Amino acid sequence: MSLLIRSSYVSQSHFQPRNSKLKTIPSRLVFFSSFNHNPFFSLVYKRNPTMQNLTFSSPVTVKSSLIDPDGGELVELVVPEPEINLKKTESEAMPKVKLRKIDLEWVHVISEGWASPLKGFMREDEYLQSLHFNSLRLKDGTLVNMSLPIVLAIDDDTKERIGVSKNVALVTPQGDIIGSLRSVEIYKHNKEERIARTWGTTSPGLPYVEEHIAPSGNWLIGGDLEVFQPIKYNDGLDHYRLSPRQLRKEFDNRKADAVFAFQLRNPVHNGHALLMNDTRKRLLEMGYKNPVLLLHPLGGFTKADDVPLDVRMEQHSKVLEDGVLDPETTIVSIFPSPMHYAGPTEVQWHAKARINAGANFYIVGRDPAGMGHPTEKRDLYDPDHGKKVLSMAPGLEKLNILPFRVAAYDTVEKKMAFFDPSRAKEFLFISGTKMRTYARTGENPPDGFMCPSGWSVLVKYYESLQENDESSKQQAVVSA
Amino acid sequence: MSLLIRSSYVSQSHFQPRNSKLKTIPSRLVFFSSFNHNPFFSLVYKRNPTMQNLTFSSPVTVKSSLIDPDGGELVELVVPEPEINLKKTESEAMPKVKLRKIDLEWVHVISEGWASPLKGFMREDEYLQSLHFNSLRLKDGTLVNMSLPIVLAIDDDTKERIGVSKNVALVTPQGDIIGSLRSVEIYKHNKEERIARTWGTTSPGLPYVEEHIAPSGNWLIGGDLEVFQPIKYNDGLDHYRLSPRQLRKEFDNRKADAVFAFQLRNPVHNGHALLMNDTRKRLLEMGYKNPVLLLHPLGGFTKADDVPLDVRMEQHSKVLEDGVLDPETTIVSIFPSPMHYAGPTEVQWHAKARINAGANFYIVGRDPAGMGHPTEKRDLYDPDHGKKVLSMAPGLEKLNILPFRVAAYDTVEKKMAFFDPSRAKEFLFISGTKMRTYARTGENPPDGFMCPSGWSVLVKYYESLQENDESSKQQAVVSA
Repeated sequence: MSLLIRSSYVSQSHFQPRNSKLKTIPSRLVFFSSFNHNPFFSLVYKRNPTMQNLTFSSPVTVKSSLIDPDGGELVELVVPEPEINLKKTESEAMPKVKLRKIDLEWVHVISEGWASPLKGFMREDEYLQSLHFNSLRLKDGTLVNMSLPIVLAIDDDTKERIGVSKNVALVTPQGDIIGSLRSVEIYKHNKEERIARTWGTTSPGLPYVEEHIAPSGNWLIGGDLEVFQPIKYNDGLDHYRLSPRQLRKEFDNRKADAVFAFQLRNPVHNGHALLMNDTRKRLLEMGYKNPVLLLHPLGGFTKADDVPLDVRMEQHSKVLEDGVLDPETTIVSIFPSPMHYAGPTEVQWHAKARINAGANFYIVGRDPAGMGHPTEKRDLYDPDHGKKVLSMAPGLEKLNILPFRVAAYDTVEKKMAFFDPSRAKEFLFISGTKMRTYARTGENPPDGFMCPSGWSVLVKYYESLQENDESSKQQAVVSA
Repeated sequence: MSLLIRSSYVSQSHFQPRNSKLKTIPSRLVFFSSFNHNPFFSLVYKRNPTMQNLTFSSPVTVKSSLIDPDGGELVELVVPEPEINLKKTESEAMPKVKLRKIDLEWVHVISEGWASPLKGFMREDEYLQSLHFNSLRLKDGTLVNMSLPIVLAIDDDTKERIGVSKNVALVTPQGDIIGSLRSVEIYKHNKEERIARTWGTTSPGLPYVEEHIAPSGNWLIGGDLEVFQPIKYNDGLDHYRLSPRQLRKEFDNRKADAVFAFQLRNPVHNGHALLMNDTRKRLLEMGYKNPVLLLHPLGGFTKADDVPLDVRMEQHSKVLEDGVLDPETTIVSIFPSPMHYAGPTEVQWHAKARINAGANFYIVGRDPAGMGHPTEKRDLYDPDHGKKVLSMAPGLEKLNILPFRVAAYDTVEKKMAFFDPSRAKEFLFISGTKMRTYARTGENPPDGFMCPSGWSVLVKYYESLQENDESSKQQAVVSA
């Protein structure tokens, strides 16, 4: 997600209205969907929208029950305590599949149900549906969104060792068996096709492709996943890693009647905060009693020049300590997925996973999950395609999509504010690149761009990078 | 479609059963869908399948009404006679968009309703849905299949000339205005993304890409299409070009109660004929009284080394004259679409378009719409993915997919026959490449491979190619 906050409301003319299934969905969803996928649009132009468009004779009340996970039931794949010893013993006799760090991140994602109703690494029929249709068809004929292939690659040797075995044990890079895949299916890993259909390019320089697909095996293995215990990283951040079940419990504890998710992989500045606070205000105006923000930084693989997770988490906690966001109505948690940088395809995954965690509102920015084209001087994706595709995506009809409103630095008011076109010259747009340049060069951004304690986390990080650079240069001189 | 006939039945375990919507679809469809997407599978293993699995208390009878077109109503975009003069006059004042031959083929396709419910070249919301989801969502929330972007590219100059005009006139390569696009929308033509997502590769050497996308403009223009008269080619084959409406009328005239479509872009050999005749036999066994075959060669753009349309049509007519296929129960017609060679993505288009023409059974072969990888020594697509993807595709649930059974040349019986694994050595597989080599070198294929009159059409064609080659070589010598 770019730090530059832009917005244009998605044209509704050719899209399927989100309320077209009024007669077949429960009234809770009707309540949400009567505002289509952009309730703010209604809010801006309509008076008291809460009580209009309701076609039910019985009074509709805001309930505290959360949105259903995809497939109706949250998938959780940790073996129950009494069975663990048996399962561990069984797994020791199985052929072993060595996981890479990235595979372990996906095991984490699948085992906690972020990808519900997916119950393991994809078999070929799921892979093909994901690749071609960005969705999976359930037995009852409905579609759930599934835009990224969640697959496990193995090499020729491993395939040969597995032979006709039905089940395999999963082994961490450290050599521990952490679970198994059952009733496996092995099929070809056509990397070129996977990359082209997922990223819409096969250009060299895609971070996930270069680091994780290019060096991976020529086969994919799918099957039903079981893990012996929840995945932990022991990096001091595990307490931030709430599972969808834990998040749902927390939302219920707080009596949330609306949950709005904000996906990010960048530091939070005051423009983001303005947007999130404004979202809550508007949800209150809509009639919700207690909308809760899920501030949900991505915690898996990111590219080398992104700000690392630990730095971001420190920055986010400063933002809350500073009161820029209200800790009472905000939950900060880590989303364990790796980052694909696959733009409109990936943003669907980001949104879908948050449904499983209980969010029924999803904030989408300009160029979500996008990046610069690796070999051409342009954005890889049209910056507007992300929110457009999200609003059309099969299986995401029940989610309310909230496009960013334009925020920028108001040089008169000396704060981040929603852009006012009537005095456009008084606004300054500070891009992510510009922000990183400020931090890298030690220059301060304008007052009010970010809370000072959060900013100093970034400055400290970039200083440490330079020190490392200096020291490795010196080492290079010494060893030369 | 490869000339090599292979089959393996699609595994049903993870797929959505085709009869999952029993309660919401009319009994006619229930009748079909009770056999899932492969009724032959049932037929082979079950006794009297016609009357089983029917859950309705009222007697289900085979009706003559045809499958509904996508969207419920067949799109037809030829301006009614009384309005033509007015529309023509209007169009003369509009900015002009020059069509290439390939664009005209798509105008033909759209105007006759092969792409129903599409009413013109795609606007961006349709384009994005097609690219990402291979389907379009209708206003009632249902999905129709739409796997290929059907788009019109324009260059920078044309875009500038159009400016803010709402409507544009469409002009043939010969300079005639043949219709208009109304309420146009112009958006970026990201060729790399379109190619990657449609073909699953961006490798150089894709015929449609090199000939029609690479040289096309950087913008796409969508809008509502109107044409002043049906598209004709005046190549002596127009009488073969029946529109979906004309085909439906013909099926009704023949009192067809099942229509099975066979898409091809190659000559028909006796293995194909065996399969088609066997299909009819099995449909009769299922209880249909009059299954009709739509033998439906593709008539638009094909790659240079494919057999040209006129030669194929002559070959097909010999096959019917020879009685290899029964003219009483076969309709030979030209499918006006250009060929993408986009494998699993394109086969959906081939199937979907035939629904619009009234077919409720679709025969799918090995590697449909496939070709060799342009730069690597392998098939571009997994030969089994076509039928798998077809069986999963959103919007094609109402179509019965019939995978090919394996046919090969039986060297003992001296005819094309279904492959019998118990005497595998007695069968000879004659690939398309091998067949073309026979025809090119003047060698005769084994007796019974193709009817002699059909074969001589091919031999004559390849001889004429060689004569042309010789004469151009001689001309080169003369001019050197």
